[in-house]
Amino acid sequence: MLETIIAKIHPLDKAAMTTAQARQNSLTKPAGSLGRLEELSVQLAGITGQAIPAIKDKVIVTMAGDHGVVAEGVSAYPSEVTPQMVLNFLYDGAAINVLSKHVGARVTFVDMGVAADMDPHPKLVNKRIAKGTTNMTQGPAMSREDALKAILAGVEVVEAEISKGLDIVGTGDMGIGNTTPSAAIASVLTGIKPAKLAGRGTGIDDEGLKRKVDAIERALAKNKPNPKDGLDVLAKVGGFEIAGLAGVMLGAAAHRKPVMVDGFISTAAAMIAVSITPTLRPYLISAHRSQEYGHSQMIEWLGLKPLVDLDFRLGEGTGAALGISLAEAACKILANMATFTEAGVTDKE
Amino acid sequence: MLETIIAKIHPLDKAAMTTAQARQNSLTKPAGSLGRLEELSVQLAGITGQAIPAIKDKVIVTMAGDHGVVAEGVSAYPSEVTPQMVLNFLYDGAAINVLSKHVGARVTFVDMGVAADMDPHPKLVNKRIAKGTTNMTQGPAMSREDALKAILAGVEVVEAEISKGLDIVGTGDMGIGNTTPSAAIASVLTGIKPAKLAGRGTGIDDEGLKRKVDAIERALAKNKPNPKDGLDVLAKVGGFEIAGLAGVMLGAAAHRKPVMVDGFISTAAAMIAVSITPTLRPYLISAHRSQEYGHSQMIEWLGLKPLVDLDFRLGEGTGAALGISLAEAACKILANMATFTEAGVTDKE
Repeated sequence: MLETIIAKIHPLDKAAMTTAQARQNSLTKPAGSLGRLEELSVQLAGITGQAIPAIKDKVIVTMAGDHGVVAEGVSAYPSEVTPQMVLNFLYDGAAINVLSKHVGARVTFVDMGVAADMDPHPKLVNKRIAKGTTNMTQGPAMSREDALKAILAGVEVVEAEISKGLDIVGTGDMGIGNTTPSAAIASVLTGIKPAKLAGRGTGIDDEGLKRKVDAIERALAKNKPNPKDGLDVLAKVGGFEIAGLAGVMLGAAAHRKPVMVDGFISTAAAMIAVSITPTLRPYLISAHRSQEYGHSQMIEWLGLKPLVDLDFRLGEGTGAALGISLAEAACKILANMATFTEAGVTDKE
Repeated sequence: MLETIIAKIHPLDKAAMTTAQARQNSLTKPAGSLGRLEELSVQLAGITGQAIPAIKDKVIVTMAGDHGVVAEGVSAYPSEVTPQMVLNFLYDGAAINVLSKHVGARVTFVDMGVAADMDPHPKLVNKRIAKGTTNMTQGPAMSREDALKAILAGVEVVEAEISKGLDIVGTGDMGIGNTTPSAAIASVLTGIKPAKLAGRGTGIDDEGLKRKVDAIERALAKNKPNPKDGLDVLAKVGGFEIAGLAGVMLGAAAHRKPVMVDGFISTAAAMIAVSITPTLRPYLISAHRSQEYGHSQMIEWLGLKPLVDLDFRLGEGTGAALGISLAEAACKILANMATFTEAGVTDKE
């Protein structure tokens, strides 16, 4: 089943990219003068296979999960905040609600593994694998089977959204403690020590940061994740929302849909997904450089360059929302500007 | 008359800023986790005097003018492109048309000094001072009287927009050759040599760049602008659209309206305006870091930090359009997110 998805991820459409680039050069502006937006429009042409791609239906998938490793004192907030924030999402009070509305995107909230009972809600998709992961300092965060199940749940979520209409998907996360597994994933895959990747998350103090680095080191020593096997890394030191987001990315790419990757946690999910299949990489757009320590090394490992740097460190898909608006702008530039010929403007000799 | 405007520019409202900051800290996110958008919301509170400012009516003022110095071979495009691009603006074909529509801003196009006959058009405001500036290598680009007249025309333009409804104004420019006077202004005010400030504009080659630097050096030697006198600098090595934009900024600040400063040319206008009265500075927001060489030193001189860096080098207000959308997002975050208490979310101890 995962193999089927992977087999559907094809290289970008070079012909569409060439046509898009030629059109960019014919529009009434010095060639290249809209910088990153021009590049982005060409990438979007390659992803979608449309020489003039259109972004109308914008979707953010925000996935929640809890983390057993919180018992090690790695977060400034208690795990009970995860379900509280999910309710805040459902009642429209969070940053992602405000920013998704601002950019005209709909948001789907998914329970991938919250560690609390939650009443069913029409706006909450239930894909819960378990009530939070196991404490990864004691053993694997989840079984390999559950890791796979969580990825496939992510594929299902994005496919359901595609059936409703989706031209771009942004990723988002909520999960107290989830910068810890994300930094652990980054450490395994980049080979950089945890102390050089782990940051303050929602704002832990110096002592908390020491505990966090120590917990990651112990989790890596205990589980020995295999950096050549993305699924192994995910199962041993990952999280359910991270797995689900990796699935969203793979599922989107299998349908030639662009993925706007949010910050630290989404980037860890992207690293897992790219480890599973490097063919995913050209479908990814890094929305922003997170203020969370270590993020820059993660996007560098992915070979991505973030669109903006606004010192965000919130997650939820907040950076992705802004990135989606830029992607839409890039498509509108390509589609709607007049050419030199159409406008009767003298081009450079 | 200019003195009246200057006298109306007051310091930011500290009380509104304190209240806005306290509210930011009470919203359901780790304090500071929306980085630049949080800072921006507090600045906007200070500018407007509203603890929860709202940005609804968004306006971009794009001013056009021609430059006598084009005779020195400083641009990759001929001056005839200025009126052609103005027509492109009026017929909705340019990048600023697309991007202003994308962010829901209206645009006002102003002829400050195009060097061609132009038919009247309902969407074009005629504030023309002259058919282009004089070649500044031969003498002052304009008289001191005309410089003042152009600034006051900019004040009138923004006041007319305020009367229609304006919560933020973005600045934009069009004028073949106008990176040359802008670099000249920057050189006088920063004391940095022209060769370290002048860039390729719309894309001149190495020989053209040499001619450009040489033209600026000759203009400075000929006119000896006084760096302590902004109006003198503007008259001797400026441009009509630059003067008009300085007026827009001063007029906006006099009415407690925030100014989203676009790229290289708008930043030169901001430098002139701040030279005239440093009380303007806190009303300015730098939308983006332009790819045009020298821009970073100009924003540093102003003490501003651009919101984004997307390698733009187009002008027209294209960067300001994106910045305006971020300012609107910042206000919505402050106004519409739930507090920890409202949402029943446990705050950090």
